[in-house]
Amino acid sequence: MEFQFSSNLLEDAVGELAKLPGIGKRTAMRMALHLLKQDQNHVNRLGESLIRMRQEMLFCERCHNISEKPICSICSSPKREEGLICVVEDIRDVMAIENTSQFKGLYHVLGGLISPMDGISPSDLHIESLVKRVKQEKISEIILALSATVEGDTTNFYIFKRLKDDGVKLSTLARGVAIGDEIEFADEVTLGRSIVQRLPYVGT
Amino acid sequence: MEFQFSSNLLEDAVGELAKLPGIGKRTAMRMALHLLKQDQNHVNRLGESLIRMRQEMLFCERCHNISEKPICSICSSPKREEGLICVVEDIRDVMAIENTSQFKGLYHVLGGLISPMDGISPSDLHIESLVKRVKQEKISEIILALSATVEGDTTNFYIFKRLKDDGVKLSTLARGVAIGDEIEFADEVTLGRSIVQRLPYVGT
Repeated sequence: MEFQFSSNLLEDAVGELAKLPGIGKRTAMRMALHLLKQDQNHVNRLGESLIRMRQEMLFCERCHNISEKPICSICSSPKREEGLICVVEDIRDVMAIENTSQFKGLYHVLGGLISPMDGISPSDLHIESLVKRVKQEKISEIILALSATVEGDTTNFYIFKRLKDDGVKLSTLARGVAIGDEIEFADEVTLGRSIVQRLPYVGT
Repeated sequence: MEFQFSSNLLEDAVGELAKLPGIGKRTAMRMALHLLKQDQNHVNRLGESLIRMRQEMLFCERCHNISEKPICSICSSPKREEGLICVVEDIRDVMAIENTSQFKGLYHVLGGLISPMDGISPSDLHIESLVKRVKQEKISEIILALSATVEGDTTNFYIFKRLKDDGVKLSTLARGVAIGDEIEFADEVTLGRSIVQRLPYVGT
């Protein structure tokens, strides 16, 4: 449905909101009318927080994570293990892994996965800088924490080929039945891999 | 899922985006990361268009439609029929009806429907000002164009009770099988009403 706008102010706002990912004209209109009913302060906070974020946010020069300084807080922390790099697709993966509190190394954010279908080639991703880090920093292990999809597998394999002569240990995430999941509802590929890669039971 | 933010800038932006209707933390994060990849100008346009809209947008003093002046462009147009008011729930309905180009009267935007369940009573809506318009302006007919729901029916009935002694003609939208719809798939209430309120076939 096309809206007949009686106001350029509204039309502009709806047009801009509709450029957000996953937001159509209808949802944008609902958001705009919602904002019209809010305090001016509330709307200012929204608008200004977006502008400020884009203005002041940097990407870490070392790992490409978001950062408020040239080098991010993880890369510059003395508590992190320097020789261990976890390679992830994007910033959300860094947050998810940080949430687990199980990883004390550094990250390398690729900014996507190789996907010929979507026109994303290795040169569109931060792979060169990973290769450079492996040559320049003392890296003992690289954990490939990419999605278990065709794109993830392709990217894993490309990185493997690029790094296999550098003597760095490469590992990937363990795959298996999720904790709390029932066996009968696990998909067969995952369940099959869980059986093949079974672990010794240590009784704790 | 809770995000562990490494940046207050991002956290603020995601927090503000997540206050929009229908937007959760995850979607807000996706939007924020999308905006981080856009031009600064693009993000400025979004932020500023929202702030400006809230700042400069007015509501018409006569019909409560959105407006950039105290009286909206529809109310102040000499081409509109002054004695005919179409009562609608919100601004989107004005746009939808304007889109049809079939209505040349004025509007009255209630700003919602009576809904005791949601705590919305007649005094929360622009009903008093409608009653006042009927007394002060020369209104010959009021078209109640509200949703065919319990709330719409309640609001229709309340307005009917308030206006029935003022000698103004009240009408509602025709309900029936939509143009292009197949009879067998019409819901039975709509189909039933279409039969009871059948029209003479004029052969054109």
